[in-house]
Amino acid sequence: MTSLDTTTILPSGQDLDTAIAEGQRAYELDRAHVFHSWSAQAQIKPMTVLAAEGSYVWDGEGNRLLDFSSQLVNTNIGHQHPKVVAAIAEQAAKLCTIAPSHVNAARSEAARLIAERTPGDLNRVFFTNAGADAVEHAIRMARLHTGRYKVLARYRSYHGGTDTAINLTGDPRRWPNDYGNSGVVHFNGPFLYRSSFNAETEEQESQRALEYLDKLIQMEGPSSFAAIILESVPGTAGIMVPPPGYMAGVREICNKYGIVMIADEVMAGFGRTGKWFAIQNFDVVPDLMTFAKGVTSGYVPLGGVAINDAIAATFADRAYPGGLTYSGHPLATACAVATINVMEDENMVGNAARIGSDVLGPGLRELAAKHPSVGEVRGLGVFWAIELVANQATREPLAPYGGNSPAMVATLGALKSGGLLPFANFNRIHAVPPCNVSDDEVAEGLRILDAALTVADGFVS
Amino acid sequence: MTSLDTTTILPSGQDLDTAIAEGQRAYELDRAHVFHSWSAQAQIKPMTVLAAEGSYVWDGEGNRLLDFSSQLVNTNIGHQHPKVVAAIAEQAAKLCTIAPSHVNAARSEAARLIAERTPGDLNRVFFTNAGADAVEHAIRMARLHTGRYKVLARYRSYHGGTDTAINLTGDPRRWPNDYGNSGVVHFNGPFLYRSSFNAETEEQESQRALEYLDKLIQMEGPSSFAAIILESVPGTAGIMVPPPGYMAGVREICNKYGIVMIADEVMAGFGRTGKWFAIQNFDVVPDLMTFAKGVTSGYVPLGGVAINDAIAATFADRAYPGGLTYSGHPLATACAVATINVMEDENMVGNAARIGSDVLGPGLRELAAKHPSVGEVRGLGVFWAIELVANQATREPLAPYGGNSPAMVATLGALKSGGLLPFANFNRIHAVPPCNVSDDEVAEGLRILDAALTVADGFVS
Ligand SMILES: Cc1ncc(COP(=O)(O)O)c(C=O)c1O
Ligand SMILES: Cc1ncc(COP(=O)(O)O)c(C=O)c1O
Repeated sequence: MTSLDTTTILPSGQDLDTAIAEGQRAYELDRAHVFHSWSAQAQIKPMTVLAAEGSYVWDGEGNRLLDFSSQLVNTNIGHQHPKVVAAIAEQAAKLCTIAPSHVNAARSEAARLIAERTPGDLNRVFFTNAGADAVEHAIRMARLHTGRYKVLARYRSYHGGTDTAINLTGDPRRWPNDYGNSGVVHFNGPFLYRSSFNAETEEQESQRALEYLDKLIQMEGPSSFAAIILESVPGTAGIMVPPPGYMAGVREICNKYGIVMIADEVMAGFGRTGKWFAIQNFDVVPDLMTFAKGVTSGYVPLGGVAINDAIAATFADRAYPGGLTYSGHPLATACAVATINVMEDENMVGNAARIGSDVLGPGLRELAAKHPSVGEVRGLGVFWAIELVANQATREPLAPYGGNSPAMVATLGALKSGGLLPFANFNRIHAVPPCNVSDDEVAEGLRILDAALTVADGFVS
Repeated sequence: MTSLDTTTILPSGQDLDTAIAEGQRAYELDRAHVFHSWSAQAQIKPMTVLAAEGSYVWDGEGNRLLDFSSQLVNTNIGHQHPKVVAAIAEQAAKLCTIAPSHVNAARSEAARLIAERTPGDLNRVFFTNAGADAVEHAIRMARLHTGRYKVLARYRSYHGGTDTAINLTGDPRRWPNDYGNSGVVHFNGPFLYRSSFNAETEEQESQRALEYLDKLIQMEGPSSFAAIILESVPGTAGIMVPPPGYMAGVREICNKYGIVMIADEVMAGFGRTGKWFAIQNFDVVPDLMTFAKGVTSGYVPLGGVAINDAIAATFADRAYPGGLTYSGHPLATACAVATINVMEDENMVGNAARIGSDVLGPGLRELAAKHPSVGEVRGLGVFWAIELVANQATREPLAPYGGNSPAMVATLGALKSGGLLPFANFNRIHAVPPCNVSDDEVAEGLRILDAALTVADGFVS
């Protein structure tokens, strides 16, 4: 069921018929001139988006869809928050851009607000344009700080699309980009539902994953590793919340071998897990932390690396050999300032925590109990994965790792026609609404999910 | 002489005293929390910028400076163009962000406007956040298109700060990032003033540089190269306009060996050389073209790769394994649309060409004739380098390659206190004002340069 909106005026103030015509022309131009990410260009039929507001977007036919994707899990404050939109216009009128070598008020204030929220002594911020370049620079800092080259990264992870970032990535998108020379060693992290360690409890999974990591490092050479990078809560790869003790154990291993611990908070940071940063769920302080997405809700592209005092000291009197034209871009950092301030003023981080524990989490667990196609639901805050299976006993995924299936296509189609825009990956649907999602919107989302899961159930053997 | 502006209201409408106080606080926060590009953090004293308009910026004390840097050679339409500022506010109010997989009107229109201006069959655009990631993706496309790995890149070049981009780069910033495993082979390009080929004329330089490149490829293995990347006019490395026949010769070599030709137009593109793209000065069509900076004048971060039909066809039915959260970001692409339209409407590309041939070029040549510290001036459009030497006969640079010198520090100090903000690199000063700079502003710049070059003359032996 398409939830066709009754109004003929879009939230942008645009008349719907005009917008639809504009959208049709946009579609034609797109197919003629736009090259899309991660796609076989001739095989995609992209959806047009005419407008967006709060937790909703409007597609090319004017249908209103509940945005349970937050796009690429970045619109943490929802779409078109009026205060942030106003702040962008205000900074644009004041000063759009200035080179990174100059001091600028917006950049300084953003750095202050971020440093105030990061754990421990992550007191300095190197601003980048987004997540991938944040990851690249974090790895560089670790390499130069330690004088070592190799890096450990998880399977079932995503760290970005530039060469070093995609080689750190532990998903099939790395494969065509891996020439075997990136110095990355991949390891299995804890994931009890599909345990690599034959574990049966979270405690076992955590302990065995740590033992395995330590032994892997001993075999690869403890003094050869510059860094371990891992998402505080792996996102695209499946929202596997680390079991108790795991992150603290990784911290200990890093301390033991002098390895820099990099927490990738590009997706999990800025409220998504019900804390400012996901690592704060585990009382662990990394040496470097990458962020992007939520820092501006994606309204203006921005990312960065939060740096601890020891690593900053390495570059006190020795030049850091990295940079970019837009490091600390005034418009982007002014957007970060406004975003952080509205998140704070409207208690969006607290809302995300409450939604997770009281509304979305319980609702998804009910769906799991009801639908044979659901193998597991897991997550926290506004960061949840629904793992779909063809068979609950064998846990056979409803689409193969790295692939697609008619069952997933049908399920996603049912979500869309039911009026919900999901984030999907292989055999999973992620329920990742904005941090300021309302209880009613979550209830609406759960209803649409319920109906679509019935479609998925039809593929269960 | 500092040109202290008499007005106490900045162009942003801000009161000067308030702005200065805000600037002081911004400076303190910057030193506490901001990590700067390419710098030893404890050794820098960054200049504060309070405001900017057209060809001018205001520093932390309220001094007005003529911006002959265009920041990092990106504000091609000058600072705070009112139409582009308005377009940013308008798009922000309409739709700030949407995932790359969806179709969006701003992105489609930007792609159309760019494809309309690119040479040959560069008909499709993959949008990135800036220059470095554009370069990374262009290299990836070339590698997958050819099935080859190695890449040729020039010495005396800059291609960006991420790992692959910095390894392509032919300047000392690569050195601390080069682990010998990037698959890049560097070659000398034509640069008659410091010829690698003992040439005495432009024709000799061009011919010998091509012969050397061809022979290098024969020794390295013609079938091992995916791409040759080169700036259409090398920018940061010294604005060495390729001599007649060189770019066409590179095109021929690429054709002969099935190597993808990538023109990096991040700095040289969007009007800087008096053409939309610098390669259009040489009547050559590359296979891929990277752009950033001028496409939005840096007002909102944006970059991209223009792709020819053959390479696009490679990814018609095979997924392109690359992407980024903000590919084709609506706010950024709306800014590109507005920027291209004002450049067109106000004939800024034509103005850049005229300034180069009639005003800035002749003016700089006069300074070269007068000052013993000037070894050479060279350039076109609003893209000029002044090569400073300790001795015109030996051509000894006024600062060593990759380094600094008291002579350069004194000269740059004289420019700043004279009221001009330059772009400087090693022994060079670049005169790179916006494309819409006025004749009077150029005359002002030339006067300030004249006085500062007298300081440089004092260091000539
Ligand atoms: C954990 C993580 N790291 C890095 C990235 C890369 O960010 P970007 O796409 O902004 O380059 C992503 C993007 O999804 C991410 O989820
Ligand atoms: C020719 C060229 N390519 C690439 C880049 C990298 O661009 P960015 O700093 O936006 O990553 C630059 C930046 O100066 C450049 O001049």
